[in-house]
Amino acid sequence: MQERADAARNRAHLIGVARQMVAELGADRVTMDGLADRAGLGKGTVFRRFGTRAGIFLALLDEEETLFQQQVMSGPPPLGPGAPAVERLVAFGRARLEFLVEHTVLARAALDPGQPVPAGDSPSLFHVHMLLGEACPDEAASGTLALQLVAALEGPVLLYLRAPEDAPDPQTVVADLAASWQVLVERVCD
Amino acid sequence: MQERADAARNRAHLIGVARQMVAELGADRVTMDGLADRAGLGKGTVFRRFGTRAGIFLALLDEEETLFQQQVMSGPPPLGPGAPAVERLVAFGRARLEFLVEHTVLARAALDPGQPVPAGDSPSLFHVHMLLGEACPDEAASGTLALQLVAALEGPVLLYLRAPEDAPDPQTVVADLAASWQVLVERVCD
Repeated sequence: MQERADAARNRAHLIGVARQMVAELGADRVTMDGLADRAGLGKGTVFRRFGTRAGIFLALLDEEETLFQQQVMSGPPPLGPGAPAVERLVAFGRARLEFLVEHTVLARAALDPGQPVPAGDSPSLFHVHMLLGEACPDEAASGTLALQLVAALEGPVLLYLRAPEDAPDPQTVVADLAASWQVLVERVCD
Repeated sequence: MQERADAARNRAHLIGVARQMVAELGADRVTMDGLADRAGLGKGTVFRRFGTRAGIFLALLDEEETLFQQQVMSGPPPLGPGAPAVERLVAFGRARLEFLVEHTVLARAALDPGQPVPAGDSPSLFHVHMLLGEACPDEAASGTLALQLVAALEGPVLLYLRAPEDAPDPQTVVADLAASWQVLVERVCD
């Protein structure tokens, strides 16, 4: 039990230090070695905790992600339960785009170059698949189409655009992608 | 002129050696240093030619890509000109998925971890945007929706799946994604 408590403390300490380093230095300059040094822990501890450099950012993103998912699971409609499924899909897209643009630096840094993007078991896929099933309970509700829709929603910000946070107006990027997402979803579920 | 001819010969030589190394060693084990060694050229020459390690694979992929694009531009319908635009979009999706699964190793190796995926100016985006404009000349034909559809088409193979070439049956993966792409496109253009 003592060991487990130490591990939890180490994790909280590492996450706090990592967050501080991202704020001070930018994500680009946070390394496993640098984090171990600053945290006063061995490199082995950092490695066991995060696995890879991308794992550091994934852990930071994870906390924000949990807050986002709570809004979807139990926040007010139309993002939360209570609105028709198509409206919820539209609201999910807009909120997700805002989330990704707000956290672009972390979200991109969390992409591990050696690993596929973990959309295959992401909460986004879970929600889109569920809402798609409610909105149009037919062939369109397949897991494959849900995966393609998640790619359509998250791909442009995560993967294609050159640093939307540096765009003259990130809110225009979000508005444009969200409007187009609405067209897509409404037509798929029509 | 002499210098330009040398450069072209170096490029052809490097591409040939790189192709051989990928076949012999697998893409994972091809490095800038290894390629320079094997080609008997300076590392500076390799660097100037390809920029990054991912640039090597992008150059290899580029030749296959050119053949693929020729099929779209001037091959037989429905992939080539002559079929209705929606049919061409459906055929484009299936052919593109087959192409990506056939060349997954190169296509993934060509993704530069430090750079956004270059879909923003890819030939795929050009074709999807053009066909979408023909198939449904209204709000759906926006460049943003075309980008989202390219993400829906290419994202699952390029980015999300764990090595589809290692799947028990890559043709099932293609068939599944292609069927779902057809649903998506037909509904968007309905």
